[in-house]
Amino acid sequence: MTTDVHGRTDCQRSPTEVAAAEIVPPILRQYGELTRVALCEYLRPREPQRHLWSMVADYPRRGGRMLRPSLCIATARAFGASAEDAVRTAAALELLHNAFLVHDDIEDDSLERRGHLTLNALHGVSAAVNAGDALALLGLRALMDNRGRLGTLLTMRIMEEAERMARETLEGQALELGWQRDNAISLTEADYLQMVLRKTCWYTTIFPIRAGALIGTRGAIDADRFVRFGFFLGAAFQIQDDRLNLVGNHGTYGKEMCGDLWEGKRTLMLTYLMRRATPRQVSRLCAYLARPRSERTASEVAWLRDLMETYRCTDYAAEVAHSLVGATRHEYCLLYSELPDSRDKRFIEALPYWVLERS
Amino acid sequence: MTTDVHGRTDCQRSPTEVAAAEIVPPILRQYGELTRVALCEYLRPREPQRHLWSMVADYPRRGGRMLRPSLCIATARAFGASAEDAVRTAAALELLHNAFLVHDDIEDDSLERRGHLTLNALHGVSAAVNAGDALALLGLRALMDNRGRLGTLLTMRIMEEAERMARETLEGQALELGWQRDNAISLTEADYLQMVLRKTCWYTTIFPIRAGALIGTRGAIDADRFVRFGFFLGAAFQIQDDRLNLVGNHGTYGKEMCGDLWEGKRTLMLTYLMRRATPRQVSRLCAYLARPRSERTASEVAWLRDLMETYRCTDYAAEVAHSLVGATRHEYCLLYSELPDSRDKRFIEALPYWVLERS
Repeated sequence: MTTDVHGRTDCQRSPTEVAAAEIVPPILRQYGELTRVALCEYLRPREPQRHLWSMVADYPRRGGRMLRPSLCIATARAFGASAEDAVRTAAALELLHNAFLVHDDIEDDSLERRGHLTLNALHGVSAAVNAGDALALLGLRALMDNRGRLGTLLTMRIMEEAERMARETLEGQALELGWQRDNAISLTEADYLQMVLRKTCWYTTIFPIRAGALIGTRGAIDADRFVRFGFFLGAAFQIQDDRLNLVGNHGTYGKEMCGDLWEGKRTLMLTYLMRRATPRQVSRLCAYLARPRSERTASEVAWLRDLMETYRCTDYAAEVAHSLVGATRHEYCLLYSELPDSRDKRFIEALPYWVLERS
Repeated sequence: MTTDVHGRTDCQRSPTEVAAAEIVPPILRQYGELTRVALCEYLRPREPQRHLWSMVADYPRRGGRMLRPSLCIATARAFGASAEDAVRTAAALELLHNAFLVHDDIEDDSLERRGHLTLNALHGVSAAVNAGDALALLGLRALMDNRGRLGTLLTMRIMEEAERMARETLEGQALELGWQRDNAISLTEADYLQMVLRKTCWYTTIFPIRAGALIGTRGAIDADRFVRFGFFLGAAFQIQDDRLNLVGNHGTYGKEMCGDLWEGKRTLMLTYLMRRATPRQVSRLCAYLARPRSERTASEVAWLRDLMETYRCTDYAAEVAHSLVGATRHEYCLLYSELPDSRDKRFIEALPYWVLERS
């Protein structure tokens, strides 16, 4: 158990003391840059460049916070590995993340991603499906390239983790799409969190942490220990992301504002609204959700946004996100307090608070 | 070198003596059934069943000739392995094949597959993109499951092969989509064959053979030796498939007749027609190809079909397919004549002739 200058252990300091805004961004920049260098190898121009590889490189080149790769590298380092040991897994994560984004944007019929038109909006669905497949394949390639540094057994172990992660993500995505398709209207908060655990948390937090810990310990750790911490952190992240879709700044957010309302996405705020609104409002809302996106109007979206405002849905979502971040605290202490103090450990500790603060 | 009852080696018998129709179908049935049993494990019902796994199981359950898995198992056996050694790779191949089909059907906006509506026609593009991703992931799962029987190193080697194969397939698909998108009209036969090598041959013939030979020899073979044989066989297969789209029987063929004409696919027959038709006909053809599928009419498709008839394009394609099958002969002798005679070897020898005869 390590202590600070006042003799307090990690877990005795209060979370407000964790200066997330000072600790997190420099690490995101540093490990993000490392990952970007590793990505160059996978995203280099080659034939057919115009019809495939230039599209494949498009989303990754638009930037991104590099949250997932950084979490993976920091965890590996906190458990004793070097950043170089984890950087290919980090690159794989970013490639797989972008593969999900490309196919998600098709599935949600989204128009904007990271401040530009989506691949499907730019090049049509066919080319985007193929480009997403190629990104996933590059992710697999990067995972296989771990072999030289990590050896065949650990490489295979991480691939097993990645396979599980991709399955959870696809199942979560299927749940969410299914709800929209069925026009599900009686979803509970538990349904929502279950979906987010699979659609978001597995690839955003759980896999990066599990893979990092496996790399750091050369496979000698029970990866299931990290599921709860990853879930609390990832769910807070997703809820905050959904909030920003309504109340964020378009320039920073990079996606179509209120896109979730246009798409009829089942967010925590929508489930909350369904519970709070009057029967008349609920019935109007159901009629809105029953129509395809192309038949929804800007004035209806504005009405829905106002209704969420009236019932303070985004405030409620912020409260839930705060509770989830609070819950990471106990898990953090269980998982990390025995490790020697390090910049990486402080990054992991601070990340939940940064998730709340990010705009 | 083994000889027959007349003292002739494999390569001295004339190809017409190879009774493809007698040798090939029983093996396709037998190894197809083995593969189907292995597939059950991957296609079992699970949650979310309705929104994901039932769609994932749909195409594989529609049947199929099981050409790819059978070629893989037969090659492994011809090189000394048991069918059980190869059956998971065979199952992986069939899963990956179905993953390609699902995404191809989206990309080509196809309506029919194996005698029923395509997944995209049945459930929409979003659900189909996700189901295709899940099929690819199951293919990866099956490849990873080789470990218990084949060991980690050979498992990894086959995954390397699969990664290469998937890359070739995606690049070939990108070329073909790109040609339609650009309305490419001055394609040569070499362009077409290059595209088919990548889009079709790598996953239909080259990978099944390479993986089979690696399994049969426990990794002790130069897999590059098989590229030419696989290319000749796979290209003959694709050209025959394109011919059947025009002249086949709808019940047996299982896809929309003349779908390639509706989709403006760059087939060998279309390249040939472009070379042979009058400038006036070519110009009308270019105008047709320049329009999206939704703006093409049945009478235009009938005109194009008649034009292909006039210029005997399908006859020309049959000649090319025959030449390719002839070219497999020399390669077959180089690759297989040293192996002990077996039912599997005769299957591989006969397969090119069966490809020509199938309807």
